[in-house]
Amino acid sequence: MMFITRRERFNAAHRLFREDFSDEQNLEVFGKCSNPNWHGHNYTLYVTVKGEVNPKLGFVINLKTLSILIREKIIDKLDHKNLNVEVDFMSGKIMSTENLAIAIWEELESSVLALGCQLHRVKVVETENNYVEYFGS
Amino acid sequence: MMFITRRERFNAAHRLFREDFSDEQNLEVFGKCSNPNWHGHNYTLYVTVKGEVNPKLGFVINLKTLSILIREKIIDKLDHKNLNVEVDFMSGKIMSTENLAIAIWEELESSVLALGCQLHRVKVVETENNYVEYFGS
Amino acid sequence: MMFITRRERFNAAHRLFREDFSDEQNLEVFGKCSNPNWHGHNYTLYVTVKGEVNPKLGFVINLKTLSILIREKIIDKLDHKNLNVEVDFMSGKIMSTENLAIAIWEELESSVLALGCQLHRVKVVETENNYVEYFGS
Amino acid sequence: MMFITRRERFNAAHRLFREDFSDEQNLEVFGKCSNPNWHGHNYTLYVTVKGEVNPKLGFVINLKTLSILIREKIIDKLDHKNLNVEVDFMSGKIMSTENLAIAIWEELESSVLALGCQLHRVKVVETENNYVEYFGS
Amino acid sequence: MMFITRRERFNAAHRLFREDFSDEQNLEVFGKCSNPNWHGHNYTLYVTVKGEVNPKLGFVINLKTLSILIREKIIDKLDHKNLNVEVDFMSGKIMSTENLAIAIWEELESSVLALGCQLHRVKVVETENNYVEYFGS
Amino acid sequence: MMFITRRERFNAAHRLFREDFSDEQNLEVFGKCSNPNWHGHNYTLYVTVKGEVNPKLGFVINLKTLSILIREKIIDKLDHKNLNVEVDFMSGKIMSTENLAIAIWEELESSVLALGCQLHRVKVVETENNYVEYFGS
Repeated sequence: MMFITRRERFNAAHRLFREDFSDEQNLEVFGKCSNPNWHGHNYTLYVTVKGEVNPKLGFVINLKTLSILIREKIIDKLDHKNLNVEVDFMSGKIMSTENLAIAIWEELESSVLALGCQLHRVKVVETENNYVEYFGS
Repeated sequence: MMFITRRERFNAAHRLFREDFSDEQNLEVFGKCSNPNWHGHNYTLYVTVKGEVNPKLGFVINLKTLSILIREKIIDKLDHKNLNVEVDFMSGKIMSTENLAIAIWEELESSVLALGCQLHRVKVVETENNYVEYFGS
Repeated sequence: MMFITRRERFNAAHRLFREDFSDEQNLEVFGKCSNPNWHGHNYTLYVTVKGEVNPKLGFVINLKTLSILIREKIIDKLDHKNLNVEVDFMSGKIMSTENLAIAIWEELESSVLALGCQLHRVKVVETENNYVEYFGS
Repeated sequence: MMFITRRERFNAAHRLFREDFSDEQNLEVFGKCSNPNWHGHNYTLYVTVKGEVNPKLGFVINLKTLSILIREKIIDKLDHKNLNVEVDFMSGKIMSTENLAIAIWEELESSVLALGCQLHRVKVVETENNYVEYFGS
Repeated sequence: MMFITRRERFNAAHRLFREDFSDEQNLEVFGKCSNPNWHGHNYTLYVTVKGEVNPKLGFVINLKTLSILIREKIIDKLDHKNLNVEVDFMSGKIMSTENLAIAIWEELESSVLALGCQLHRVKVVETENNYVEYFGS
Repeated sequence: MMFITRRERFNAAHRLFREDFSDEQNLEVFGKCSNPNWHGHNYTLYVTVKGEVNPKLGFVINLKTLSILIREKIIDKLDHKNLNVEVDFMSGKIMSTENLAIAIWEELESSVLALGCQLHRVKVVETENNYVEYFGS
């Protein structure tokens, strides 16, 4: 079993808040991340796929194919966007890094399987000090 | 003459656009950076100060003092903010990295002088692929 | 299950040695890290916590709370200190990165549990070429 | 159980291709990585070893010993070399990062065991966007 | 005057040598970089352009335009190539990082002028330990 | 004129203080950096040399020669040392990063000249947030 990881990046605005909270409640729970005027990040996404090495070609998955998959299904929908209001697969969810990682997993899982591999990990780095990792339920 | 640089960081939303342009014009000139719903970045700010080394204390400037100055005058106003709508010193300006660097220079210049040094450079890194540097007019 | 990691940093002096070894023995076993006059590092600490995503708030743990916990229990005791002589929880131990990681785990484990999560990993990076990871006994 | 990781680096040329493919087939399958005139990378190798912490010395393994082992068995054979034509343990294999990671594992496994530890992971970073990890069969 | 820098990357093979030297002489002068079977690097290129900030648009130069220019004139010719044998503008030159930086400057200078700016610096990073900078003759 | 930079690293202990100050005065002026029990850093040193490109060999200076020079004159004296008490060229000086940069310049200047180049810049990075640069008096 071999694990291969592809890094992609996106720059986006977001806000941490609950609609049914007042601004004061949101500030208390989510801090400055709840700013109603939004803030943003340079997000880094690491997608790790696992599988057997193809003995004929020497690779687990064609990285070009994996990169195009991630770009079409994830990056094109997130880059230079407002994550709270413009992303179909985040609709109705709290825009936390945790929920974003789960949603990215769900968007990618079956497509990676269709390529003959398994999705192993989705890692989303929000700042140099914080990141989350999701390995599926 | 010695040059000393302090790094500070802020995460913010912004948008590149002109109010007197249509959305189509803004898209044509500023590309996806003109998204009306905002996007954002992890900005890194490098402030370089120059001066003589104080022979008694061995430093050009107390870095703690410099850091507090940058935080009070710049970071507290930019971090987790919308750079287009919430920053007094960017009001009425196109929110480009270039204009941001000039504005930061103008906010810091006299305070650095008051500390007995000269501001040498303001460097703003927007992504790992792009940064601007301003050395004063 | 979601994994979230917080990075914190500290700069400290230390020395690798055994009191019951001669200087020659310490030099032979621990190399230049045994220098009796100390040396030091910019240490980077990564603390990974795992737990369920709170469905109401969208996060595993409030990162601000986690950061304060790590600072109070670890960083304030290590930063700008001599790790061999000034840190209560390293007293009487060989000041290796391995032992430091175990001690940090023991300092944090119950407090992380009290926050409703589990400590998953303590990673201590000593130089760009060396790091250790501890996942509990 | 403690995990300790050593980073080493090597700069090398390589090419992704099958001898029994035409240039067109290689281009189609391996893309620009199949360039018959070679291309190259600054590779970064992370070797992770696991074991008990020696209670007398405070470490899992002497990092100097581990570094020398990796240099003698791996880096000296790969650095400033053509990975396809000059490396004994890659002879007759497709020079993919995956196959390189497996070969490095096989070169190191028994020597690490002889030092009283177990090899846990070989990670090879080819570019800032791609890396593979191998944990043994 | 504002300075703006764009980073681009390319992975390539090369060799440091003189044709009129024997292999022994090349080894003596250029060390392992003279390996006749080539080696390679992940090169990072930083192109710095200077100019006035356009008061109407807020930028010195459209970064998209600059990026396309660098890709068409430089990256497409260098990436996944053998720098000694496949690059028209390096033909007949010793393939040192210094000569590469000068050649990149000469390829870009007039095109940057045509965009209303001046080329200020070409920086080529070969490894994390070495880089060259050229500011024009 | 070409500029070439070599990076070297050293890990060391130090303390910011004046002998004729009380501990309280040192704490007030130098903060936690004055800790009498020392602290330490992973220092990164960048040495930039300028000169003409040798038309026969394609380089400004043999990087191997430059690296050996820096190691013999600087790194061997600083690495895994206490910068206040074990470094001849820092004797009697306040161990600030500024003074260290000046001292490194003075140690290297004539040797670089003897190699046919000029020393251009000494840059010392103390943490990811602070660095100093010295270009000679």
